[in-house]
Amino acid sequence: MQQQPARHSRETRLDMYVDRYASRTRGMTASEIRALFAVASRPEVVSLAGGMPNISGLPLDTIGSMVHELVAEHGTEAMQYGSGQGVPMLREQICDVMALEGIEAHPDDVVVTVGSQQAVDLVTRIFCDPGDVVICEAPSYVGALGVFRAYECEVVHAEMDADGLVPAALRDALAAAAAAGQRVKFLYTIPNFHNPAGVSLSEPRRREVLEIAREHDLLVLEDNPYGLLGFDEEPRRALRADEAERVVYLGSFSKTFAPGMRVGWALAPHAVREKLVLAQESSTLCPPSFSQLMISSYLAGQDWMGQVKQFREMYRERRDAMLEALDDLMPDGTTWTVPAGGFYVWLTLPPGLDAKAMLPRAVTARVAYVPGTAFYADEFGSQCMRLSYCYPTPERIREGVRRLAAVVEQELDLRATFGVATKVQPRSYDTPNTDLT
Amino acid sequence: MQQQPARHSRETRLDMYVDRYASRTRGMTASEIRALFAVASRPEVVSLAGGMPNISGLPLDTIGSMVHELVAEHGTEAMQYGSGQGVPMLREQICDVMALEGIEAHPDDVVVTVGSQQAVDLVTRIFCDPGDVVICEAPSYVGALGVFRAYECEVVHAEMDADGLVPAALRDALAAAAAAGQRVKFLYTIPNFHNPAGVSLSEPRRREVLEIAREHDLLVLEDNPYGLLGFDEEPRRALRADEAERVVYLGSFSKTFAPGMRVGWALAPHAVREKLVLAQESSTLCPPSFSQLMISSYLAGQDWMGQVKQFREMYRERRDAMLEALDDLMPDGTTWTVPAGGFYVWLTLPPGLDAKAMLPRAVTARVAYVPGTAFYADEFGSQCMRLSYCYPTPERIREGVRRLAAVVEQELDLRATFGVATKVQPRSYDTPNTDLT
Repeated sequence: MQQQPARHSRETRLDMYVDRYASRTRGMTASEIRALFAVASRPEVVSLAGGMPNISGLPLDTIGSMVHELVAEHGTEAMQYGSGQGVPMLREQICDVMALEGIEAHPDDVVVTVGSQQAVDLVTRIFCDPGDVVICEAPSYVGALGVFRAYECEVVHAEMDADGLVPAALRDALAAAAAAGQRVKFLYTIPNFHNPAGVSLSEPRRREVLEIAREHDLLVLEDNPYGLLGFDEEPRRALRADEAERVVYLGSFSKTFAPGMRVGWALAPHAVREKLVLAQESSTLCPPSFSQLMISSYLAGQDWMGQVKQFREMYRERRDAMLEALDDLMPDGTTWTVPAGGFYVWLTLPPGLDAKAMLPRAVTARVAYVPGTAFYADEFGSQCMRLSYCYPTPERIREGVRRLAAVVEQELDLRATFGVATKVQPRSYDTPNTDLT
Repeated sequence: MQQQPARHSRETRLDMYVDRYASRTRGMTASEIRALFAVASRPEVVSLAGGMPNISGLPLDTIGSMVHELVAEHGTEAMQYGSGQGVPMLREQICDVMALEGIEAHPDDVVVTVGSQQAVDLVTRIFCDPGDVVICEAPSYVGALGVFRAYECEVVHAEMDADGLVPAALRDALAAAAAAGQRVKFLYTIPNFHNPAGVSLSEPRRREVLEIAREHDLLVLEDNPYGLLGFDEEPRRALRADEAERVVYLGSFSKTFAPGMRVGWALAPHAVREKLVLAQESSTLCPPSFSQLMISSYLAGQDWMGQVKQFREMYRERRDAMLEALDDLMPDGTTWTVPAGGFYVWLTLPPGLDAKAMLPRAVTARVAYVPGTAFYADEFGSQCMRLSYCYPTPERIREGVRRLAAVVEQELDLRATFGVATKVQPRSYDTPNTDLT
């Protein structure tokens, strides 16, 4: 029998463009858990995975009337192209929103973006060449890590604890980068109700982080989608409130109103703002006028702060339901953070358990979460998971935690019976897993 | 007197981040004519510069009611996060729209984008490394050139004439790139009612361009915002209709409905589509649900094709007004294209005149246009300009052309009196300036 060499024309390949993509495209890979989440979205599964805000409390008929009026009276503006920087009236209102966190800003320094995700993208686009370093908390927001990967940045994680980013860890990261001759382009940080860690940066640490930024001439990217969703107190003072030149502040209406309009913003030092507008024009010509005017009408004509208060109360009730259920049901050796606002609890499994390996069994048991590895650039986090309490009802949350606890118990039994080949962690972070409950 | 060396701390510089931007950011520069356009937007100036569609004919109260109903009945979906690929129902409707141009497509291969500008951005993002070649028509869409510059691509222009892109010029561009060892990532082309050239690719040339694409294994990016806005005939058959594997097709609702929702799309071969969705998720998480459901409702419930017919009639009337005025008023030696649809006329001044140098005088005479150089990557086009007839009324168009003609006459008088230092063009294109009127 004659041997035929394997021959494939371009046409028969799965992807005829496989050798033509840009280098950066190699960093854009579908999450390995994506297929599982298709299963997890079935109604019988309690999803503690997603970060979707619960907007069922919005007064839809009132908002409907408001939008009707917007179209009837300002339709040719709302449906027309706008400025790349965003609608001036909305930028003024954004300054009023930021004033709640102590920020004094001028509308000229605000750039409206397609959700704050696009703000992360545009800031990275203007600052980062391949190989540049971005310092992120450990863990960090999965969507930001995706952006940094897509721009071929090197992410260096700095530890957190129950008080947020550890300043000494930030100093270490800066020193290590300097020693390695690497350029640190910015620190990406979520000071309030961290996604996924559920912790907040303490007041003294806010001062210390800003001191470090000044000492090291470090740009800080302050991502703050949850700042107005604190359960127990007035909004905390933003980093940007005390440092205008070294902080780019990102905000969003996705959690204080609704995400479907995709309106976020960046507040940046003047020269940076100019670059961001050019990048926005290149990316989309302009953010959606309709979304912007709709949100502007909402802020001007509706009791938006009363609505935020309602959201806070709803989320607090759900947080309480989750923490109580975890307290009641989780086996010994499991620890978790106690969020004072926002959407997330960060849970660390007993030693030897692997959240990613356990996920298919959890989904079979009809509960879903996001494995901790998604929130690290370096495969750390396998013992951890993010639990969201924002979307399901308190009853569903309790049921979800009950199912999850049973899965963890089973894993512990298996481990006791058969032992576990503990994976070597690539690096050791003091992740914020102190059990404060 | 003692000489002091000039010393500036970071803080006193205009931009303390000046040495920290990414390499690509050098390509993002504000247009030098931007300041002038601020002046040109004053009501006393007839602007033949902008490409804003005229949406004053839309039935605002009907659309207002439609949006009210959308919010009241589907608000929690319309205002929630959606899929990165876009709303499934809308993607089906987009396939119906594309069928009007002979395209058979599956909704799975459609990715919704924030205007088709973002589609150009995402396609370039996944394909182009710095230095990669993109072949563009001469002239080409200014917004696409901005994207290619932002991704540090090298743009190689290929000539057009009254029948659109010249196939021999495309072959020459490919051969030159091959000889220079450069990678051509794709051809960017606007086959219908070209922006800015106002010409369309003839039927025989469509076949020839596709043959070249197959011979050279060339990807074609077919940008088609104006395809349904032809004045005299049925929509032309898209390149994508005859070649599914080597064409990424871009469409938009900005000109057939309205641009303020920022909804466009890309139809791509399956593997490319997957990369585009990942790039979209990284860029914005998802395109605006609200915009998508609003357009989906509009397509499903309103006579959108009747509206497009009204748009066509309005634009034809304006095109006629512009061509008549040019015929009546422009001095000898001025030539222009005759668009069969779309928004633009491309005008070439008599030899020795410079459209960019002339612009301040035109604005003083209360008429504005876009100088031809904006549409080239290589400073060519100084003798040309783009005139838009989409937005002003026929009366304003006639008045604008009258003012423009007077400015050109003055320039010719000046040239006759003082002579002109003719600028050496960096390269000679047979630009589509044959006077067909």
